[in-house]
Amino acid sequence: MAKKYTTRAEDYSKWYNELVARADLAEHSDVKGCMIIKPYGYAIWENMRDVLDVKFKETGHSNAYFPIFIPKRLFEAEEKNAEGFAKECAVVTHYRLKADPNQKGKLMVDPEAKLEEELIVRPTSEAIIWNTYKRWIQSYRDLPILINQWANVVRWEMRTRIFLRTAEFLWQEGHTAHATKEEAIEETERMCDVYADFAENYMAVPVIKGLKSPSERFAGAEETYCIEAMMQDGKALQAGTSHFLGQNFAQAFDVKFADAEGKLEYVWATSWGVSTRLMGALIMTHSDDDGMIVPPRLAPLQVVAVPIYKTEEELKAITEKFDQLSKELAAKGISFKFDDDDNRRPGWKFAEYEAKGIPVRLAMGPRDLENGNVEVARRDNKTKEVIPFEGVADVIEGLMEEIQQNIYDRAVKFREEHTHVVDSYDEFKLRLEAEGGFYLAHWDGTEETEEKIKEETKATIRCIPLERDEEEGVCMVTGKPSKGRVIFAKAY
Amino acid sequence: MAKKYTTRAEDYSKWYNELVARADLAEHSDVKGCMIIKPYGYAIWENMRDVLDVKFKETGHSNAYFPIFIPKRLFEAEEKNAEGFAKECAVVTHYRLKADPNQKGKLMVDPEAKLEEELIVRPTSEAIIWNTYKRWIQSYRDLPILINQWANVVRWEMRTRIFLRTAEFLWQEGHTAHATKEEAIEETERMCDVYADFAENYMAVPVIKGLKSPSERFAGAEETYCIEAMMQDGKALQAGTSHFLGQNFAQAFDVKFADAEGKLEYVWATSWGVSTRLMGALIMTHSDDDGMIVPPRLAPLQVVAVPIYKTEEELKAITEKFDQLSKELAAKGISFKFDDDDNRRPGWKFAEYEAKGIPVRLAMGPRDLENGNVEVARRDNKTKEVIPFEGVADVIEGLMEEIQQNIYDRAVKFREEHTHVVDSYDEFKLRLEAEGGFYLAHWDGTEETEEKIKEETKATIRCIPLERDEEEGVCMVTGKPSKGRVIFAKAY
Repeated sequence: MAKKYTTRAEDYSKWYNELVARADLAEHSDVKGCMIIKPYGYAIWENMRDVLDVKFKETGHSNAYFPIFIPKRLFEAEEKNAEGFAKECAVVTHYRLKADPNQKGKLMVDPEAKLEEELIVRPTSEAIIWNTYKRWIQSYRDLPILINQWANVVRWEMRTRIFLRTAEFLWQEGHTAHATKEEAIEETERMCDVYADFAENYMAVPVIKGLKSPSERFAGAEETYCIEAMMQDGKALQAGTSHFLGQNFAQAFDVKFADAEGKLEYVWATSWGVSTRLMGALIMTHSDDDGMIVPPRLAPLQVVAVPIYKTEEELKAITEKFDQLSKELAAKGISFKFDDDDNRRPGWKFAEYEAKGIPVRLAMGPRDLENGNVEVARRDNKTKEVIPFEGVADVIEGLMEEIQQNIYDRAVKFREEHTHVVDSYDEFKLRLEAEGGFYLAHWDGTEETEEKIKEETKATIRCIPLERDEEEGVCMVTGKPSKGRVIFAKAY
Repeated sequence: MAKKYTTRAEDYSKWYNELVARADLAEHSDVKGCMIIKPYGYAIWENMRDVLDVKFKETGHSNAYFPIFIPKRLFEAEEKNAEGFAKECAVVTHYRLKADPNQKGKLMVDPEAKLEEELIVRPTSEAIIWNTYKRWIQSYRDLPILINQWANVVRWEMRTRIFLRTAEFLWQEGHTAHATKEEAIEETERMCDVYADFAENYMAVPVIKGLKSPSERFAGAEETYCIEAMMQDGKALQAGTSHFLGQNFAQAFDVKFADAEGKLEYVWATSWGVSTRLMGALIMTHSDDDGMIVPPRLAPLQVVAVPIYKTEEELKAITEKFDQLSKELAAKGISFKFDDDDNRRPGWKFAEYEAKGIPVRLAMGPRDLENGNVEVARRDNKTKEVIPFEGVADVIEGLMEEIQQNIYDRAVKFREEHTHVVDSYDEFKLRLEAEGGFYLAHWDGTEETEEKIKEETKATIRCIPLERDEEEGVCMVTGKPSKGRVIFAKAY
């Protein structure tokens, strides 16, 4: 009998952890808080990265690479940024090991190889990059600089969860430099749009674009744009952020440019990033109790076929059919695998591909063969249909779009059902505790009120939506005036 | 007047450093020994990575990602490997900074946040990966495991040079696990072949495949296969290595599998890697005193067109011509840029694209326009030709192949001219000092002789070529018997 897995209803958190293992996505390593991304998980991440990389290049960005280490004196230059990350920095202090004289075959850190200045393993690269931009920027002709970096970063988190919060994670970080404030803000908004477009049209994850409240801003930013998604437990997940950094880093690193009149001005900056955290968003938006559901546009494997047979002749005939289909699907750019591994039974394979969320699964047995049919099973809604084999490639092509759309629509519907407009703090507290979800409520705009709500309910302001009705109202907590509703939710 | 650059003949090393800056490939950072890879350099590296990635996948490998940190106790498990890398390890000892009470606005390492066990920043990942494979491998059914990782690694080098030897570099590292010795050796050889194929057919860098002598083997390997290339100063550059690791790591991490009869056996291993060092090989194989020469198959930009005009009408007419060509080249998959930046003069642009090694440069002026011509300049041999514009796309397509082949042939010819068969140690010493180059000589197979030659001449055994005549001879130093010639050279 198959292993019994925890359902979402039983224990959402446990279900998530089991799913990550079951779909063979990733696992914990022996390094505290660091994960190992397994081949299947990494293949999904690669697809995400490749789509984003094209979008970054289409919007004029180039990739580059900056050092993983940041000398302490550079790291501390922008004070707010340094303060924001200081508590979670991995620090390199030595550059050599030597044989331990007291333990044969063991090594020890060589005390004589102590660095004069400690190196911080980058938690984010503004400092090292702006220290470099100082050399690159003299005149307005050197601007804009539009650079992106794909890299690993380290933030020493105490409580980690695979993909959602790990000490080391993979990400991309864009760092741009501009001559004017307007241009920098335009860039910040453009990249927020790129992220939203990617989330919705590739990940099939609906998101709300908005601004962070001051207390939730990136350390060192003047304004943080974000995209917020709702997970199936009603909690919010910040899926990407784009920061308008003002002239903070230019001032900290003394980066000025001569404008057309020769006047020296500080450079305007943005930075923006998404990370392997998106894998967590993907999992928690779509998956069900049987495993993952991967959107067709990001699926490393889109279609799998399983033969059901008793005799070698049957297998041969089925193989021929799928060989032909394989070519037709390849011509349509649809990835396909024929799984004729005879060490595994069809039922085992069905469960395995279901766990991994392969969008379409085909099966063919002797009777299908006789009738010229094939069974087509959709992962998203678990429907199965026996249809003529002739023309199945076209059917599959249609299904790719249909499944992509269906899981997106389902997620939108879920979010709508779990988004509530509230005006009373008591109602807010009651419903949040009972149902989770997003709450559109008036807020007086002060940090004090935000903090009070957080302490009393664990909910935070996820964002001030970019698209919202300007609606006069009063703060649900203090009764002070408010110009529009913001989104409160518990968050990952 | 344009800046005067150092020529190869004047000072090869200085020429290299200037070229890296001039072609805008990379630069030193403020972190000792770490480089910044600039957008143009990174674009070439991306192209290399993408070609290799396809080759790895075609040979059955999947990508995955393992932590950047290795706990000391895992790092020291395979003793030879640990010993080989101990002297160049960056070590993380703390995980938090705090405000420095003695210096306002400054941070200090928080002494209370000392790690119980130090973490090594990976210099190579065998240890963390084999510690993981232990969990993944139980039976022969779990084998082979064929995994590759694209990552950054850190080796604390004292004397660094951009791309050739840097404290942090980018690379890929394949780590495979097999049930039999034969299969592991086959894999080791296969990946050496993949590297040689890539070097020759994409980088246009001819390489010699061979085995390292025991003293030059990877720490922890039973056998190291390598590809060796000759640079234009006659020095060798090791461009890639593929290691047969025997059962060393399986024993160190106790990784056993049950064979078909249920008997427990240690797993066989390989690892193989190439790095951003390949950029150095690319530069030093092809470039000339005017700048870089990028092989068409790896060039981020293959064709550039520069308009030469006085009036707006002329520019408009030239622009129309190149707009048309742009489409034709796009259809052929050839990258093209029309550089109509009016802040720069044509002469400046010509020098710039020459420095960056763009394979083909086009120019069109009023007279060309009148005569229906275009000037086509090849970067590899610096020939220029005025030809009819009609059909130029086909000409360019042909040139891409021709240039690729020409620079490869030229490099082969150079290597042949600088490879010498010697039998006398005196002749070897004299010629090596005077001309550099590769020396095919007999060696008695002992480490003592190898060491003596290295001390006296700075030359090392680059490899024992896989393809060599089995020829009885006597060691040029000791007169002891030898079964074939090995390659000696000074090396990067």
